[in-house]
Amino acid sequence: MDRCLAADTIKNIDTEVTLLGWVDTIRSHGKIAFIDLRDRSGLVQCVDTSGKISAGNEDVIKITGLVKKRPEKMINLKIPSGTVEVSIKSFEILTKSKELPFAIDCDGYDINEEIRMKYRYLDIRRLRITRNLKIRSQVTTFIRNFLTKRDFAEIETPMLTKTTPEGARDFIVPSRLQKGKFYALPQSPQQYKQLLMVAGIERYFQIVRCFRDEDPRADRAYGEFTQLDLEMSFVNQEDIMRLTEEMFTKLVAEIFPEKHILISPWPRLSHKEVMEKYKTDKPDLRKNKTDKNELAFSWTIDFPLFTEQSKEDFYHGSGKAKFAPSHHMFAAPHPDDIPLLSSDPMKVRGLQHDLVLNGYEVGGGSMRIHEKELQEKIFDLIGFTDKQKMQFEHILTAFTFGVPPHGGIAPGIDRFLMAALGEPSVREVMAFPTSSSGQTAVMDAPSNVTEEQLKELEIKIVSAK
Amino acid sequence: MDRCLAADTIKNIDTEVTLLGWVDTIRSHGKIAFIDLRDRSGLVQCVDTSGKISAGNEDVIKITGLVKKRPEKMINLKIPSGTVEVSIKSFEILTKSKELPFAIDCDGYDINEEIRMKYRYLDIRRLRITRNLKIRSQVTTFIRNFLTKRDFAEIETPMLTKTTPEGARDFIVPSRLQKGKFYALPQSPQQYKQLLMVAGIERYFQIVRCFRDEDPRADRAYGEFTQLDLEMSFVNQEDIMRLTEEMFTKLVAEIFPEKHILISPWPRLSHKEVMEKYKTDKPDLRKNKTDKNELAFSWTIDFPLFTEQSKEDFYHGSGKAKFAPSHHMFAAPHPDDIPLLSSDPMKVRGLQHDLVLNGYEVGGGSMRIHEKELQEKIFDLIGFTDKQKMQFEHILTAFTFGVPPHGGIAPGIDRFLMAALGEPSVREVMAFPTSSSGQTAVMDAPSNVTEEQLKELEIKIVSAK
Repeated sequence: MDRCLAADTIKNIDTEVTLLGWVDTIRSHGKIAFIDLRDRSGLVQCVDTSGKISAGNEDVIKITGLVKKRPEKMINLKIPSGTVEVSIKSFEILTKSKELPFAIDCDGYDINEEIRMKYRYLDIRRLRITRNLKIRSQVTTFIRNFLTKRDFAEIETPMLTKTTPEGARDFIVPSRLQKGKFYALPQSPQQYKQLLMVAGIERYFQIVRCFRDEDPRADRAYGEFTQLDLEMSFVNQEDIMRLTEEMFTKLVAEIFPEKHILISPWPRLSHKEVMEKYKTDKPDLRKNKTDKNELAFSWTIDFPLFTEQSKEDFYHGSGKAKFAPSHHMFAAPHPDDIPLLSSDPMKVRGLQHDLVLNGYEVGGGSMRIHEKELQEKIFDLIGFTDKQKMQFEHILTAFTFGVPPHGGIAPGIDRFLMAALGEPSVREVMAFPTSSSGQTAVMDAPSNVTEEQLKELEIKIVSAK
Repeated sequence: MDRCLAADTIKNIDTEVTLLGWVDTIRSHGKIAFIDLRDRSGLVQCVDTSGKISAGNEDVIKITGLVKKRPEKMINLKIPSGTVEVSIKSFEILTKSKELPFAIDCDGYDINEEIRMKYRYLDIRRLRITRNLKIRSQVTTFIRNFLTKRDFAEIETPMLTKTTPEGARDFIVPSRLQKGKFYALPQSPQQYKQLLMVAGIERYFQIVRCFRDEDPRADRAYGEFTQLDLEMSFVNQEDIMRLTEEMFTKLVAEIFPEKHILISPWPRLSHKEVMEKYKTDKPDLRKNKTDKNELAFSWTIDFPLFTEQSKEDFYHGSGKAKFAPSHHMFAAPHPDDIPLLSSDPMKVRGLQHDLVLNGYEVGGGSMRIHEKELQEKIFDLIGFTDKQKMQFEHILTAFTFGVPPHGGIAPGIDRFLMAALGEPSVREVMAFPTSSSGQTAVMDAPSNVTEEQLKELEIKIVSAK
């Protein structure tokens, strides 16, 4: 279809154009009516003098008309096409809209979130959400180009994989072909990316969905989230931190030019130091916390490799040991501290690095263990049973075939965007987020399945509500 | 770490460099030994004259040495660094490798696939698979840049969503927060992308994982596959086909310069025509089917909107109707044929387009229905019960709020790569594919879960093997 976007009208003065979009507003003044047509590029004012046009807000319309310069005093500097208007020659309503359940010409924070999520496809029409989603797309495009230019390959890893005691609760998926058995959705591609290092890929990344059946928080959506998963061989911690810093610095300059990074190079603070000084491992180093354009990145390093196991800890009761990994069980200990693993494990430092932005942990990573015996020692220290160790047999086997030293990081895309955009919740930067009770936006899930589905999988609901 | 890649040695003649990688081969001739070091950039020959070096294939090594030009008659034109060699000054084994379970210096087609998949991280080291995965990364990068430059936004849609009778068998995921209920993994983001059109996004794409619990074939992996999901508003079928054709034509020119597209513009063949002439709706139009560099794209169009329901059909028994959608239930009928929906539905043509490459269906799409009443009529014709219709209530509701005309296409990434690379199976272009019995590569899944996991979800295995 030959079509002119609203924003392109200014390039088509004295030309007849066809516009397609939504009625943003319509104002009638007797015989003259003004329609603001909205499309993906923005708004343009269209003028009808026939007195015959009748339309409602959010109707989808087609307008053919002549683009004219506006008289000086009618110029509207608030919209990019504010120097022109379109004199309507023909007008057609393609589809009608019922009255919307809420206003979309506002930021929407005050509207009940349940209603916003039920009609999320209307909520997205609001400028703020459309903008957030488009910026999200720009951010992931930037990251992909930055990394592929540096010889990284994006490699997709499986979503149907194996349940392993990795630190959070798995979502499980019953198998039809092997009845009584289950897949698990990945908590992260941690093991696959380490296997890709064994495979000689050397520089891997993936912008990937991860799944954890854990309670949601403002900075963590229920169920699924997206992370930039990144792993490199033949590097040290310095290389990983330097690459990450360069990437986000260039990203901010290109996509958020109005924002400034407060301190460069980013401060690197030891875990001990931040806990003493800020009582948190993710300090908010902004000078002015109300300045939406201030970005304070920092690194927290020198974490203890272990924390003490508590009853809340995932590994509690899995053995007699009292140590839980402070990040995860694949993080490498500081080489100087290896002897302490036997004598005083709580004193062992890990080669871990947390990326902090404005008080949020937006990424974590580490150098990984690449020695079979050392990995087995860590499994023992966190109290794995022989059965639990067996669940990781594939990675211990992989380590016997020439494994390169490797490490990486995994910044959270949702959380970075939330922090960078100053949004109060990750749900504001996701297209169709779930609610805190696990309810999906728009579609009414989770939902009942049919008896046939359960029968085919040979599972049964024990006590459905 | 300061490191020189194998391929970069030719830029560092008479310079001392440090190389990191794997022992590809080692050949000892008395006091002189030749080690081919392999890293992500390729191979370089390193020479030891100390007589002290001992290493095994696939050990991970660090070599420091002087890059020297090779004498004319020693030049090896088979490798990019074949004009130089590295005279070893220091040599270190970083990690040892056991003997590999299979050879990796061959294409690997003759090796038992089960073993290849068990040690997939070693199988990937084989040049062919590494290359396939890197080309895959280039292809998705190209597509993303092509589309974002044309004003498309990549928007992520949920993986935990609702089970709906869409045409294939769902994978379902028990909900812990709402016991007795289930999420489904998406068969495709079909409904979400249509909702994004209602949301005014206008140009959406996503390279996205899709899930179908269906029997695998050579051109379809079990369980999960990746598609380029693409949807546009205010377009017609011509716009969609033209954009797709431009994208793949430029992609082939950039990423597969050795290949040529046989016929341009791509032939558009009606369903009737291809079925009569080729007895298939995905004809292989290559002139020379043994020429690996010949790519014959074509479109199959003018599909009948319905096929007759059979017992194998997903919708069989869901009502008294005898019609099944030939693509899916959201495909729009040809506007001229609307009256036939009441009088003779089997004669209705759909606005559908299948993308065919070398005899494979590498993509399908259509203009969509965007009228509530018409969508309801289709639901009736395929025999949906009121309960089944209710499962789609959200999309019918969305259509009442100003829906733009829209359509799209969804080329399969795995299948396109398989066809373009001339591979015999999609598993050759995936990093960690599942076997036909649903067994995952490397990790032993599906697997047993603990009693605690089942108890927490309030489900029970009825008759495990």
